[in-house]
Amino acid sequence: MTMNGAESLVRGLLAGGVEVAFTNPGTSEMHFVAALDRVEGMRCVLFLFEGGATGAADGYARMADKPASTLLHLGPGLGNGLANLHNARRARSPVVNIVGEHATYHRRFDAPLTSDIESIARPVSAWVRTSEDSRSVARDGLEAVAAARAAPGGVATLILPADTAWGEGGEVPTAREPAARALVDESRVAAAAAALRSGEPTVIFLGDRALRAPGLDLAGAIAARSGARLLAQVSNARIERGAGRVPVERLPYPVDAAVAALAGVKHLIVVGTTPPVAFFAYPDKPSELAPPDCAIQVLAEPAEDQADALRRLADLVGAAPAAAGPGARPSGRPEIPVGRLDADTIALALGALLPENAIVCDESISTGRNFFRATQGARPHDWLQLTGGAIGLGIPMATGAAIACPDRKVVNLQADGSGLYTVQALWTQARENLDVLTIVWANRSYAILKAELAHVGANPGRKAIDMLSLDRPAMDWVSLAAGFGVEAVRVDSLGGFVDSLRSGFARRGPLLIEVVM
Amino acid sequence: MTMNGAESLVRGLLAGGVEVAFTNPGTSEMHFVAALDRVEGMRCVLFLFEGGATGAADGYARMADKPASTLLHLGPGLGNGLANLHNARRARSPVVNIVGEHATYHRRFDAPLTSDIESIARPVSAWVRTSEDSRSVARDGLEAVAAARAAPGGVATLILPADTAWGEGGEVPTAREPAARALVDESRVAAAAAALRSGEPTVIFLGDRALRAPGLDLAGAIAARSGARLLAQVSNARIERGAGRVPVERLPYPVDAAVAALAGVKHLIVVGTTPPVAFFAYPDKPSELAPPDCAIQVLAEPAEDQADALRRLADLVGAAPAAAGPGARPSGRPEIPVGRLDADTIALALGALLPENAIVCDESISTGRNFFRATQGARPHDWLQLTGGAIGLGIPMATGAAIACPDRKVVNLQADGSGLYTVQALWTQARENLDVLTIVWANRSYAILKAELAHVGANPGRKAIDMLSLDRPAMDWVSLAAGFGVEAVRVDSLGGFVDSLRSGFARRGPLLIEVVM
Repeated sequence: MTMNGAESLVRGLLAGGVEVAFTNPGTSEMHFVAALDRVEGMRCVLFLFEGGATGAADGYARMADKPASTLLHLGPGLGNGLANLHNARRARSPVVNIVGEHATYHRRFDAPLTSDIESIARPVSAWVRTSEDSRSVARDGLEAVAAARAAPGGVATLILPADTAWGEGGEVPTAREPAARALVDESRVAAAAAALRSGEPTVIFLGDRALRAPGLDLAGAIAARSGARLLAQVSNARIERGAGRVPVERLPYPVDAAVAALAGVKHLIVVGTTPPVAFFAYPDKPSELAPPDCAIQVLAEPAEDQADALRRLADLVGAAPAAAGPGARPSGRPEIPVGRLDADTIALALGALLPENAIVCDESISTGRNFFRATQGARPHDWLQLTGGAIGLGIPMATGAAIACPDRKVVNLQADGSGLYTVQALWTQARENLDVLTIVWANRSYAILKAELAHVGANPGRKAIDMLSLDRPAMDWVSLAAGFGVEAVRVDSLGGFVDSLRSGFARRGPLLIEVVM
Repeated sequence: MTMNGAESLVRGLLAGGVEVAFTNPGTSEMHFVAALDRVEGMRCVLFLFEGGATGAADGYARMADKPASTLLHLGPGLGNGLANLHNARRARSPVVNIVGEHATYHRRFDAPLTSDIESIARPVSAWVRTSEDSRSVARDGLEAVAAARAAPGGVATLILPADTAWGEGGEVPTAREPAARALVDESRVAAAAAALRSGEPTVIFLGDRALRAPGLDLAGAIAARSGARLLAQVSNARIERGAGRVPVERLPYPVDAAVAALAGVKHLIVVGTTPPVAFFAYPDKPSELAPPDCAIQVLAEPAEDQADALRRLADLVGAAPAAAGPGARPSGRPEIPVGRLDADTIALALGALLPENAIVCDESISTGRNFFRATQGARPHDWLQLTGGAIGLGIPMATGAAIACPDRKVVNLQADGSGLYTVQALWTQARENLDVLTIVWANRSYAILKAELAHVGANPGRKAIDMLSLDRPAMDWVSLAAGFGVEAVRVDSLGGFVDSLRSGFARRGPLLIEVVM
């Protein structure tokens, strides 16, 4: 046999441009693992838990704009990775899952690890296929890559029965470039222009590629020309921001604040996202956040060419983007704060010290409500958020972003409750010596849920409060990090925080700062 | 409003006999959480990760023989709990999942956390329902309990849209007792008796309730009378064993050894399980493990009354069970070993020192291959295994078993690679001050996979070996335990292990011993 199915699959993935595999393999994936040594070019990154691998694939895709693969062990392994695949789906991140399965002929015996993998995969996947033949595995792999890369980007899950990995492989087809994003119809540009010319209050509501620097430059020019206001979704896959870039506010998370932010708006021009809806429903609060009499114009869907649509809209309304880049716009970088340690002084310290070209992975949840505003004037950076609301993304996402961009400092702003879901990914940061600074906000509670209890009108008693408290016992993040091989420090004063931030930004390699709130 | 849906659901669960909720709640579950204070009688146990909650529900069910509930947050929360629900399904453990969902009217807006929860739930669930009305929630909850308790026991998943929790609740119906297990037809008993009388080599192949002491007493008497051999599945939910109980060997995990164990067998009498199949398929090895000419007689399906079937079979072949209980059979408890620390001396030390009535949760994987045999003569105890092959059950299962049986010592024999999937459950052991001794076998590799690489005929290279090695960096379990609030010690000699085992068994409360192999 010249090449088995597993080896042909690795070659197929490489042909499609997949260069990294985030893995947590088991027995059914052993031929795939063995093939990694017989084919040059695939970087393998091991995780102790599948949620680390899938979250890393999301972070990688957001920064590399192309998919990595995961390698997962049957239905339960996919289940363990499902929450961060949900986030990847909501980020429209291209991800290729390779999920091992029993040999085709073994499935009918219902061995202990047998389950309906496709049923588990479908809710997070744009594309699902089970290979049935070792000769078609390479083609299946390339089709998975193509499906993941098809605009706007999505999760493709290829289920790989063990005999299709160990049987004889077929030819590796030639990869095709992904199709260019579709251009929007001129009528949509004209409708948006009419809204902008109406003289009525208008918001340009941005997501996806419209939040990269070129899109924001165009949107900023349109806003300056027309008087419209820019607003982004609550949570976004990636925003290019900081000094010299067009600032954009985000829709607030609380429903009342979101409704207030959109009050009086008569036209909403949607670019690269969907109209604003409440994250959760609450008794007697609306699901749809724009006012009932607001006209909604979709300029560009997420799968469409958002920058092109904005360029044509800018032309139509006579808006000329200003020169971009650092120095083009006032910086407004904050001074290093003094005083006590709280969410506001932390925000200012981050804004003052964030290094040039940093990648910020923000899973701050309640502590970080003001971080975004205070860092708008910081040195240019990318801001990656929790898009799907499935907490436990921060540490894995930072890991994947650091693999994608080894020359950039990755800063993971991490709520403690959320970080504990996938804390094992710290080990991968140590193992790969990744340049990730993890900053944990140790408030020792599910603080957001204490607020949510009030929002839903539930009147909490002792047991309820106890279910949202993480201080009995308090977690010791310095010990946890040490347990996974990552150096860590604990600070409980603003001076200590600023000092540790300076030294953390000055060095390379993984470090964790536990900030006791 | 006298009672909202959430409160009616809690009352329904209580009426069905559910007394414990293993929770990791989010916003959509806040009314359920608040209801726990308004209704007396439900013990709430918080986990940092859903896999802890679902694995605990499995461990609880195995010891309590009735379901606990879980409380999980939408599709991603269920996803995080899926691997241990898969194990629970394979253990036939009754479990009631309560999975929060967006309000019924909010689902169509496709808010970020929206997903197809039913599709995720179905592969692990015997019963799935989405409540659509707050007035029917209590009834739905009771039906979920009934579905979980229906023989042989299974996972029931009730999806709870937020408005069915906060809307007005309906009447709580009266719970019905679960139906008794069906009795097997006399023809099956007669067929098994004929096999036993054939004079040909016969194995009585046991699972489920046939592995509790009364079933084993009967099976042991039948074996003694007929010359048949007793054998259990590779992995079992719970075996009552130790001094004074009928010993039973398990089918070996490796295919060649399993085939050898069944070689020459002409009759296989299956009680409470399914015929033996290979855990995984391997090139050129069989999936079915019994010889092709072996006649398979199913005496009792898992849902049927196995003890009754064994009793009738014993009567038919004239087998009288010996008096049971400690002292009834020779003990064979090993001496405390001396020498070097290895898997064999560890096994002897466990056999010598295991306290009376201990609950052993065994996720030892490769290190523990000989533990089972060496503990057969230990003081009477229960032995709980990883039934579904989804690693990461040990720490959660031990946690749930300790909640079910607060007066018994729980001993978690834990492989390091597996333990890291759900290590966060240590925190719950600290929080609840549970009497769990966790013993971690720190071989710092996925040792089983190194063996599997050879079994599947894959020829490993540098990258493959690296994907199965956990020593770069080595995990520090003492630090990890401390991070979660659990006291821990590290030992690397047999003397140190025996000493720490003695003191661990003598005290109460959570403790972790890291055994460096």
